[in-house]
Amino acid sequence: MTVRAPKAVVLSSGGLDSTTAMALTRNQEFGIFSLSFDYGQRHRYELTAARRVADHLAVERHLVVRIDLEAIGGSALTDDIDVPKGRDAAQMASEIPVTYVPARNTIFLAYALAWAEVLAAERIVIGVNAVDYSGYPDCRPEYIAAFQAMADLATRHGVQGRPPIRIHTPLIHMTKAEIIRTGVALGVDYGLTHSCYDPSPEGAACGRCDSCLLRRNGFAAAGVKDPTGYMAA
Amino acid sequence: MTVRAPKAVVLSSGGLDSTTAMALTRNQEFGIFSLSFDYGQRHRYELTAARRVADHLAVERHLVVRIDLEAIGGSALTDDIDVPKGRDAAQMASEIPVTYVPARNTIFLAYALAWAEVLAAERIVIGVNAVDYSGYPDCRPEYIAAFQAMADLATRHGVQGRPPIRIHTPLIHMTKAEIIRTGVALGVDYGLTHSCYDPSPEGAACGRCDSCLLRRNGFAAAGVKDPTGYMAA
Repeated sequence: MTVRAPKAVVLSSGGLDSTTAMALTRNQEFGIFSLSFDYGQRHRYELTAARRVADHLAVERHLVVRIDLEAIGGSALTDDIDVPKGRDAAQMASEIPVTYVPARNTIFLAYALAWAEVLAAERIVIGVNAVDYSGYPDCRPEYIAAFQAMADLATRHGVQGRPPIRIHTPLIHMTKAEIIRTGVALGVDYGLTHSCYDPSPEGAACGRCDSCLLRRNGFAAAGVKDPTGYMAA
Repeated sequence: MTVRAPKAVVLSSGGLDSTTAMALTRNQEFGIFSLSFDYGQRHRYELTAARRVADHLAVERHLVVRIDLEAIGGSALTDDIDVPKGRDAAQMASEIPVTYVPARNTIFLAYALAWAEVLAAERIVIGVNAVDYSGYPDCRPEYIAAFQAMADLATRHGVQGRPPIRIHTPLIHMTKAEIIRTGVALGVDYGLTHSCYDPSPEGAACGRCDSCLLRRNGFAAAGVKDPTGYMAA
């Protein structure tokens, strides 16, 4: 396989944010290595979306790593806890929701770091967002900066004087509407993406979980037609 | 299950170092939650040893998490690369060996952080060692300090004002001989532990890989009889 240099490992959930981050990175002439996780999430349909997005954006390689978060538990996304529906922005911002998965981004970024080291990639891209971050501690800019400082010491790169692996968060200060407008300008087909935390087995979005509400409001604010078929109006 | 408070998540490889770290933590009246990983390591026998150690030290719970490092590759411990044998101390110290697994401790500590958050544990214990660290970047004190700084921002604890989860490295400045003498004083049966990177399918230690050589030299320096049956004299 011939890969255009440089390489970027892009965390992909098959959702709106990670897909836009991937499109931005692709547009900067990186060879894309997309990385998704099968962690027993109830919204496992996102892996189907991640595969579609990988094809759409012509990645060099798409890797799905099976990880065992059910053994650890503690989240509505992996355990038998109801996903909250119909919350407003104030409720979303006021507390860490039950859909928070303990240390999830730390685990995801740790795998991305391992793969970046093996590939000799110079960049890891994660579509976290501090505007609509919905109460997750591991989406904050200060968390990402601390992960970078740790990563600089964690690998061969930290010992052998190689250029460091940089963690890029191109969406971190964008609103959902700005993210959508950016993706549309880059030709992203958001009909391929999936955001819902609690979809039907066939992948239909519920329309009322935090993730669906952020998505719907984002399309409305961007003035872009939302291609998603929601179960609830 | 009634657990004496406080709780500690202890990373366990079934080896000499992690077992000693666990015994020290047990001796400090922590309830122990031991955590091991099945990551396709060729020294998979260590999981048998970790189970024996968990029973020996009467842990509250022993969890084996299956993680997929083979998909990422890049190490003699998971790939079809020969484990080096018969290296001296200068060779071990001079370079990062092929037995280095990219970002392994970052991945292991990330899982430990997730489990500690779910358990409301106050401590994570890892038996890394800066004296005999054999060239691994993610065994250095500065790496552990950076992981701590990241962990302080990664979880609910970092947002909700809970006491932080502390990462303890009780062996970091000990020689192998000091570790062994410490364990013996605490009643550790090192005959239950396993260190070899390249054992027989039945778990017999090769006697010549870096890990076996550090172990053998440690027992000799401690003046303690080594209970290990090695294949090579």
